[in-house]
Amino acid sequence: MFNKVAQSDIKALESILPGRVFKGDEINEDYYHDELGTAYGIPEVLVKVLTTEEVSHIMQYANEHLIPVVVRGSGTGLVGGSVATNGGIMLDTTLMNKVLELDEKNMTVTVQPGILLMELAAYCNDHGYQYCPDPGEKSATIGGNISTNAGGMRAVKYGVTRDAVRALTVVRPTGEILHLGSKVVKNSSGYSLKDLIIGSEGTLAVVTEAILKIIPKPEYAISTLIPFNSMAEAISAVPKIIGAKVTPVAVEYMSQDVILFAEEYLGKKFPTHDSDAYLLLTFDGNTKEAVTHDMETIADLCLELGALDVYMIDTEERSTSVWSARSAFLEAIKGSTDLMDECDVVVPRSLVADFILYTHEVAEKVGLRIPSFGHAGDGNLHIYLCRDGKNDEEWNEKKEKAFDLMYKKSREMGGLVSGEHGIGLDKKEYLYEVLGKEQIEIMKGIKKVFDPNGILNPGKVV
Amino acid sequence: MFNKVAQSDIKALESILPGRVFKGDEINEDYYHDELGTAYGIPEVLVKVLTTEEVSHIMQYANEHLIPVVVRGSGTGLVGGSVATNGGIMLDTTLMNKVLELDEKNMTVTVQPGILLMELAAYCNDHGYQYCPDPGEKSATIGGNISTNAGGMRAVKYGVTRDAVRALTVVRPTGEILHLGSKVVKNSSGYSLKDLIIGSEGTLAVVTEAILKIIPKPEYAISTLIPFNSMAEAISAVPKIIGAKVTPVAVEYMSQDVILFAEEYLGKKFPTHDSDAYLLLTFDGNTKEAVTHDMETIADLCLELGALDVYMIDTEERSTSVWSARSAFLEAIKGSTDLMDECDVVVPRSLVADFILYTHEVAEKVGLRIPSFGHAGDGNLHIYLCRDGKNDEEWNEKKEKAFDLMYKKSREMGGLVSGEHGIGLDKKEYLYEVLGKEQIEIMKGIKKVFDPNGILNPGKVV
Repeated sequence: MFNKVAQSDIKALESILPGRVFKGDEINEDYYHDELGTAYGIPEVLVKVLTTEEVSHIMQYANEHLIPVVVRGSGTGLVGGSVATNGGIMLDTTLMNKVLELDEKNMTVTVQPGILLMELAAYCNDHGYQYCPDPGEKSATIGGNISTNAGGMRAVKYGVTRDAVRALTVVRPTGEILHLGSKVVKNSSGYSLKDLIIGSEGTLAVVTEAILKIIPKPEYAISTLIPFNSMAEAISAVPKIIGAKVTPVAVEYMSQDVILFAEEYLGKKFPTHDSDAYLLLTFDGNTKEAVTHDMETIADLCLELGALDVYMIDTEERSTSVWSARSAFLEAIKGSTDLMDECDVVVPRSLVADFILYTHEVAEKVGLRIPSFGHAGDGNLHIYLCRDGKNDEEWNEKKEKAFDLMYKKSREMGGLVSGEHGIGLDKKEYLYEVLGKEQIEIMKGIKKVFDPNGILNPGKVV
Repeated sequence: MFNKVAQSDIKALESILPGRVFKGDEINEDYYHDELGTAYGIPEVLVKVLTTEEVSHIMQYANEHLIPVVVRGSGTGLVGGSVATNGGIMLDTTLMNKVLELDEKNMTVTVQPGILLMELAAYCNDHGYQYCPDPGEKSATIGGNISTNAGGMRAVKYGVTRDAVRALTVVRPTGEILHLGSKVVKNSSGYSLKDLIIGSEGTLAVVTEAILKIIPKPEYAISTLIPFNSMAEAISAVPKIIGAKVTPVAVEYMSQDVILFAEEYLGKKFPTHDSDAYLLLTFDGNTKEAVTHDMETIADLCLELGALDVYMIDTEERSTSVWSARSAFLEAIKGSTDLMDECDVVVPRSLVADFILYTHEVAEKVGLRIPSFGHAGDGNLHIYLCRDGKNDEEWNEKKEKAFDLMYKKSREMGGLVSGEHGIGLDKKEYLYEVLGKEQIEIMKGIKKVFDPNGILNPGKVV
């Protein structure tokens, strides 16, 4: 169905991108897989783009010659979404990493897709602003965040990536450049193509520019770490916290085992690790009084609900240590085993405890270690299946069994397959099961409208 | 292309909806047009539905027999979106007006599409919650709000309808029932069909159920009315207000002439009407101190920026009088002329003053009275062209000229055709001009995926 990349194609690409076309040994092996490494594929050619127009030329060429294209940011994905499983062209956006405009009157920042989340955060911070979404992986590109509609820690108060994207410039697989949305806040002008691109995992169009909403950086922020006797007690406090007329920025759940992995991985001590389960909460605001009031309201509530203590994370040092540990959970669990796979299901907030308890049952039943942590405030869990030295056959069998059980449970609970990591290659069959044939057919129809030849990230999502 | 409704079709519809099928004189003339009355069309048959399954049966029948269907809530639209311009079946959802579930743990309310915004607001209020979107027209149905992605007054702080919709049950034109989204906060599970339906003005599917996000009702709210010497001074204060690290709930702009119309229309006095231009601001929060702090910060800022005074709207009575006047602006302007047409452009917040000044120029140039008011905080303006007794030819010529100039200006400013009222029938040509052929073609392709026979609200949007 697709054509292989020929010598003539390389020449043509080089004429579009002189000096930025790589092949064979020139392509680092890191480009063969993503962060988790469950999918594998060797791009026939790697191109590094600098402008929207270059992307347009590349796509036009690829479309005419039926060569598949996979877009790649920093490759921190976990579901194979940015892996060249059909060979072809890998389109690397990491050189497109500039801030193009800070518009303080409309409170937007216009960026290229290759800027890293940590670079964007630092830029906004330096100018007194905050870009609200805060996914754990700070070295992801913003283009990747948009492609998966990444959520992150601050979603409880500030929403997900979708809520922060005002406008996109995208290139269709046919090479057409589209400007979707605008700097404006409200919009009722035709179907929201912008919202269709967000979360489409690089299968509908290539994002080449984004106008993002920013807010003035809150003046005060404070975190608290609250230990509980058990996961069930910790998690059952969450809906009550959310209902207490105080909106925390973040409500993160962590279990003792994950904290111990992080301590070992980072070689640093957490403020406490003696309890079974913890909630990590952050509050922000513009007056110290308001933030303290919010925090104390919730601390008192948690103590009523059985919390064992309330640790204030009120120094810069403590805050850095706790949040860097939180950001390292994925790496720490990865370090505790030889290979892992993950599921980032999302279930209604009220059923998070039931779901985690169920993963413990599954662990026992199939004989796999399954640590987890998660964004308890919004029902999004990160659950890891650890191989722990099992042979291929045993691992694949157990893994499949565990995934089947967990996705089935999530479906029964009214949950969805992915909260923020996406579907990519690895979760496709589970997406089919949850959404059903009709929705998948509609999505395939939409894919065809954008990409008649199916050359953009083929085989992913639908 | 479409079939007329025959006697046999009426019989078939009656067997699906016994006693809820109306034709000829049984259909009130109100169903021939919407609130503004710029579009006109007589439905051949009117059906009142009660359940998702009924809608599914009706759509299946209509699709097989190629009969066009227009969905109708309370008909408060302003762009002809709910008018049966092709005859056929009008599907009235107003009997589907129940609250189906209040889920306090996940903070959602599940409703049928025919519930009125004011009924939903009252229900939430009675239970200590707030449904955040607050469009001016309180007798619109929530289904209508979803179809236009209505914004309203509180969008500055709380976002628009899109931000409040967690899940939808919809019926495709082919009769298939789809469940889109879920109660969960985060979602990265395939293309966001839910976001495609929101704002699609009843052209892709019929919304039959919605799960909406609610929040605990803020404990305190206070409004202030701030007079300025001129529109330019009032509006140029807005980006500074938004940037002042205090997030108002609402930032509304109103000019003296519109206030005078409202006073006359309601037979009630506004707290003040002596200045040329006013900002009406609201702040909310959970402690009186925090709300007062926010309000005083902004009051001081406005006085620095040339405000003439600051009127506190701190009694229930005053608040009701001011906000009921605000909600009556559309009706009041309508009462000041024999016929009007409107444009609800949205421009970047920083260019609102320039745009309003331009409408004054246009009014002079084409010789039409053009009063306006608007959601200054989010750049969404409601601009009214008043006929004032002109004959058909003159009115149509001047109206078209004025619209052409204003939409062209909005395009140049990076704005869009509609902030919240939609495209419907009346604004299609302007949508084409702003978005361009490629985007319209994609939208048409998507329309075809959902509605292969084109029977649902034909001729609207695209």
